[in-house]
Amino acid sequence: MRAVTLSGPGGPEVLQWAEVPDPVLKPGEVLVDVVATAVNRADLLQRAGNYPPPPGASEVLGLECSGVISEVGEGVTGWAVGDEVCALLSGGGYAERVAVPAGQLLPRPAGVELATAAALPEVVCTVWSNVFMLAGLTRGDDFLVHGGSSGIGTMAIQLAARAGARVFTTAGSAAKLDVCRELGAEVTINYRAEDFVECVREETDGAGVDVVLDNMGAKYLARNVDALATGGRLVCIGMQGGTKAELDLGKLMRKRGSVHATTLRARPATGPGGKAEIVAAVRHDVWPDVERGVVRPIVDRRLPMSRAAEAHRVVDASEHVGKVLLLNE
Amino acid sequence: MRAVTLSGPGGPEVLQWAEVPDPVLKPGEVLVDVVATAVNRADLLQRAGNYPPPPGASEVLGLECSGVISEVGEGVTGWAVGDEVCALLSGGGYAERVAVPAGQLLPRPAGVELATAAALPEVVCTVWSNVFMLAGLTRGDDFLVHGGSSGIGTMAIQLAARAGARVFTTAGSAAKLDVCRELGAEVTINYRAEDFVECVREETDGAGVDVVLDNMGAKYLARNVDALATGGRLVCIGMQGGTKAELDLGKLMRKRGSVHATTLRARPATGPGGKAEIVAAVRHDVWPDVERGVVRPIVDRRLPMSRAAEAHRVVDASEHVGKVLLLNE
Repeated sequence: MRAVTLSGPGGPEVLQWAEVPDPVLKPGEVLVDVVATAVNRADLLQRAGNYPPPPGASEVLGLECSGVISEVGEGVTGWAVGDEVCALLSGGGYAERVAVPAGQLLPRPAGVELATAAALPEVVCTVWSNVFMLAGLTRGDDFLVHGGSSGIGTMAIQLAARAGARVFTTAGSAAKLDVCRELGAEVTINYRAEDFVECVREETDGAGVDVVLDNMGAKYLARNVDALATGGRLVCIGMQGGTKAELDLGKLMRKRGSVHATTLRARPATGPGGKAEIVAAVRHDVWPDVERGVVRPIVDRRLPMSRAAEAHRVVDASEHVGKVLLLNE
Repeated sequence: MRAVTLSGPGGPEVLQWAEVPDPVLKPGEVLVDVVATAVNRADLLQRAGNYPPPPGASEVLGLECSGVISEVGEGVTGWAVGDEVCALLSGGGYAERVAVPAGQLLPRPAGVELATAAALPEVVCTVWSNVFMLAGLTRGDDFLVHGGSSGIGTMAIQLAARAGARVFTTAGSAAKLDVCRELGAEVTINYRAEDFVECVREETDGAGVDVVLDNMGAKYLARNVDALATGGRLVCIGMQGGTKAELDLGKLMRKRGSVHATTLRARPATGPGGKAEIVAAVRHDVWPDVERGVVRPIVDRRLPMSRAAEAHRVVDASEHVGKVLLLNE
């Protein structure tokens, strides 16, 4: 089969559409003929050599896909050849075929085109596991998500608004903030012009927000803690602003707050806190609203797999809103 | 009535046994004739001027007491004059009488002498709310508590061992570590001679512990994160080693860990996360085992209220094991 390979660690130019061995199906897995995958920031880190795949995962990039089941492995029940699916992957999505543990499959939601369904698994699983399963966001809470126009951001806004939270978000342009508002954000903050801590304080009468979903890491740590309400939870899922920063535990204590840092990719396939548990929760708690159109995949653009380098340049430059898809032709 | 008052912020010498106005009973409160109170580190901070009482709380020191109900306020049900109780306070325990919100009362446990019962409320409520309600320690978990011979430490060891966790603890002398072992600690670490991170790694085959209960704050932050297992929770309830330190979010993310910082005193009397909720949980989940003698109050010494200065010197110097009580004569 063909897949996007790396000629070495580096910029987008190292991405090549090339012949590679077919994946080997293990018990408990299905083979998916990939229709589309989507670009995640983790792919950019892996391409640059800074995020090696976890042990046992494919060397090929790609943390999610949609497609059609072409083979069902030993011990798999509930799935059949020909099923249209999307899937959370530990790697291998930038390819014509990928082997997927059955617990990481989701049915294509009714009403969502198969290619478009590739935009869903990573963002829905990430937001659901962190904002709801971990941080327990609930009706009436105030919720801040940074990077509201990113793939994660566009899904976090929708899921939080659907849950009855008041959504605050940051983005870097008026056009991006317009999209955030359309998706359900109530307070939009242009981080180039405004201080998000001040905005949060003003809009919450000084109380702060109950949950922050952060992709900036070190750069925002102190200000995210400043923005927390009493009992607030800060969840860091990205380190775009570095990893090490000073934490004021005294301030955190006065707020009875917490700082969580998580990653989806390194979670085990099964067991407590594993990918299958999250995928099952998503299928139960989110999928019905995707099928009703209440929660929508937001797609920025669609490019053929062979143009993965171009897709990476777009995401690297944060030119996109929502997800950038890569399709097999 | 008489109470321990402060001649100003300062050392133990500012503590004076003096005449003060009686507390005024509000609706929902009972008046308790205090038999005993116990010294907490927060009292030392308040004495030094570094920990002002929360709004509405008594200016008098003392976060817990035992005694006899002498008056029942408007709207209070379930308690009667003459009841022997102990109580979690927002202040006011170093006195002959104290007004207590009814939700913060616990019955004297059968089999525990009334004065001794003053050793229980703070440590049981602190450990239960943090280690179990917040961090969710459970059977088979590995648990590290720093300062195992402190009031908090002696209770944390007992409650964690009772719950089926494996208990690791640190203390500063062989004699203190002996007590910790008697209370149920399996791995005891002399912090003057050994590195607790290395000990934890060795005893857990490199995995780390699931929950850390910390009283050192900044000084131990990085090493506590190092000691965490995947999915581990660090709960800081004291800042004896300062408040500000560098946090490596990348490391925390690789462990999918969390850092919590909390305080019991500042919690509201009622409502979600309030003192009454914690006290009710303690009465339901811990009190039966106190009455069975499975969980015991550990008392270092008993001094009269008029010798509060001496009691503070003992705690300041960490000479004690368990709780130092102050009794009305």
